[in-house]
Amino acid sequence: MSDEHFVAENTFYVRYAETDAMQVVHHASYIVWLEEGRSEYLRQRGHNYADMQAEGYYLAVTGVNLRYHRSMVYGQRATVRTWVNELRSRMVRFGYEVLHADTGERCVSGETTHICITHDGQPAKIPESWRI
Amino acid sequence: MSDEHFVAENTFYVRYAETDAMQVVHHASYIVWLEEGRSEYLRQRGHNYADMQAEGYYLAVTGVNLRYHRSMVYGQRATVRTWVNELRSRMVRFGYEVLHADTGERCVSGETTHICITHDGQPAKIPESWRI
Amino acid sequence: MSDEHFVAENTFYVRYAETDAMQVVHHASYIVWLEEGRSEYLRQRGHNYADMQAEGYYLAVTGVNLRYHRSMVYGQRATVRTWVNELRSRMVRFGYEVLHADTGERCVSGETTHICITHDGQPAKIPESWRI
Amino acid sequence: MSDEHFVAENTFYVRYAETDAMQVVHHASYIVWLEEGRSEYLRQRGHNYADMQAEGYYLAVTGVNLRYHRSMVYGQRATVRTWVNELRSRMVRFGYEVLHADTGERCVSGETTHICITHDGQPAKIPESWRI
Repeated sequence: MSDEHFVAENTFYVRYAETDAMQVVHHASYIVWLEEGRSEYLRQRGHNYADMQAEGYYLAVTGVNLRYHRSMVYGQRATVRTWVNELRSRMVRFGYEVLHADTGERCVSGETTHICITHDGQPAKIPESWRI
Repeated sequence: MSDEHFVAENTFYVRYAETDAMQVVHHASYIVWLEEGRSEYLRQRGHNYADMQAEGYYLAVTGVNLRYHRSMVYGQRATVRTWVNELRSRMVRFGYEVLHADTGERCVSGETTHICITHDGQPAKIPESWRI
Repeated sequence: MSDEHFVAENTFYVRYAETDAMQVVHHASYIVWLEEGRSEYLRQRGHNYADMQAEGYYLAVTGVNLRYHRSMVYGQRATVRTWVNELRSRMVRFGYEVLHADTGERCVSGETTHICITHDGQPAKIPESWRI
Repeated sequence: MSDEHFVAENTFYVRYAETDAMQVVHHASYIVWLEEGRSEYLRQRGHNYADMQAEGYYLAVTGVNLRYHRSMVYGQRATVRTWVNELRSRMVRFGYEVLHADTGERCVSGETTHICITHDGQPAKIPESWRI
C-alpha cells in the first residue's frame, strides 16, 4: 500500500451474471469489482492479499460509500481505478473510480474503509511489510 | 413508501454462498439484503416493486453509504430493518439496520439513495400511487 | 440426513439481485437456492451445517446436474424441495425441485453430489451423528 | 458458434467474493465463469452476445452438468476453456474445463445446454449469422 499517488487500473468485460432485470449492472456487482480493484492494487505494488491472510492479517471492511453516476450494460468493458486515500497504522481508506473502458465516462466513484484484524477478529497494526 | 415512521423487518438465515474466505458474510452480500429489505418494505406498505416496473418506473440506486459494525457468520439469522429517511418528488432515501436476529446486536447500518427513472433512463417523478 | 423419504421445503421471494438482463432469475442463482435447501433440510432434521463444520467436517460439492424447465421472475415466490437420493458412508446425493410457490409449476429439478472432507481436504466418513 | 474444434480460453484471477467459508471458490461461482467462457467464445468467433440480444435472440440455459475435481482458492488464476459440443438448429451444447492457470490441473469440467428463444420466451432457430 502506501500513501503515494499510485493508481492501479484493471479492465475487464461486464459479466452477464452481474446484470439485473433493469438490464444494467446491479449496484452490488460494483462492490465486487472494487474489491478486485484492491487485489489488483496490491498485486501491482508487489503484494498479494492471499499472502497477507496466510500471515494471519485481514483488511476487514468497515465502510462503503459509493455514488452511481451512469449505468453499465453487458457487452461493455469496465476499468476500475484504485488508489489509497489514507493510510494509518491500523486502517486504510481506498478510493475508486469505475469508468466505461472505451469512452472514459465515469460510472461509479467512492471509497471503502478497512481496519486490519487478525483471524480471531482482534484489531491489529497493518504489518510494516504491507505498508510499502 | 411515504415519509412516516414505518419500519419493515424481515428475518432470514445467512446463506452459505454469502460468506467468503474470511468465514464471515461478505460485505457485498449485505447490499443484496438491503435491496430485499426495500422489497419487503414496499410489500408491507401494500406495494410491489414488480408492479412498479411493469408500469415503467424504476428506482435506480444513486448512492450507497454503509457502516459495518460486526460480522455475521453462516448459521446465524439476520434481521433487516428498513425505513424511509427522506421522500421527495423524484428521489427517495432508505435507511437500514442489519441486526443479529437472536441477540439484536447491530451488524450493519446505512442508507441508499434512489431516483425514479423510466425504462429508457429518463428521470421521472415517483408516481403518486407509490407515495402512500 | 438419512435415506428416508423426508422432503424439506422452504419458500421465499426472488431477490432482485438474483435476476439478470434477460429479466428472469439467473441460472446460477438456483445453485445458491439449492444450497440453502440443503441447509434447510439439515435444520429440519435437527442438524446444523454450521455445527458440522465446527466439528471439522464439510460436504464438498463434487457434482451438479440441473434441468431448467421454466423461468422465474422478480416478484414471485419460489419453493425449494430438498431430499436425499442416496446416502453412503462417504458421500451423499441430494435431490431437488424448485417450484413456483403459488402455482406449483416446476421450474428447476436436479441433484448435487457431495463427499465428506475434513478442513485440509482429506476424504472422511460422514460422522454417525449426521446420518440420522 | 459452429461445430468445429475451436476452443476459447480466458484466464483471470479468482475474486475474493467468489470464495466461501470453506475458503475455496464457491461451487456457484464456476457457473458464472462458464457463462463468461461462452461470452469469450462468441467474442473470439467474431460475435457478441449483446448484439444477439439486441436482435431479439437469447440462449436460455436448459441444463447444467458439472463435475468438481479440485478446489481453487483466492490468489490463484483460473483458465476457462470453452468449446461447442453440439450445435443444432434450435439448441447448442457447450463444453468446458476450468484449469489452474499455473499448473494446468483440471478443477471443473462439464457442459451446459441452451435453446434459442425470443424475448417473449418462444423457441426459435439460432439465426444463421450466429452459426458461423
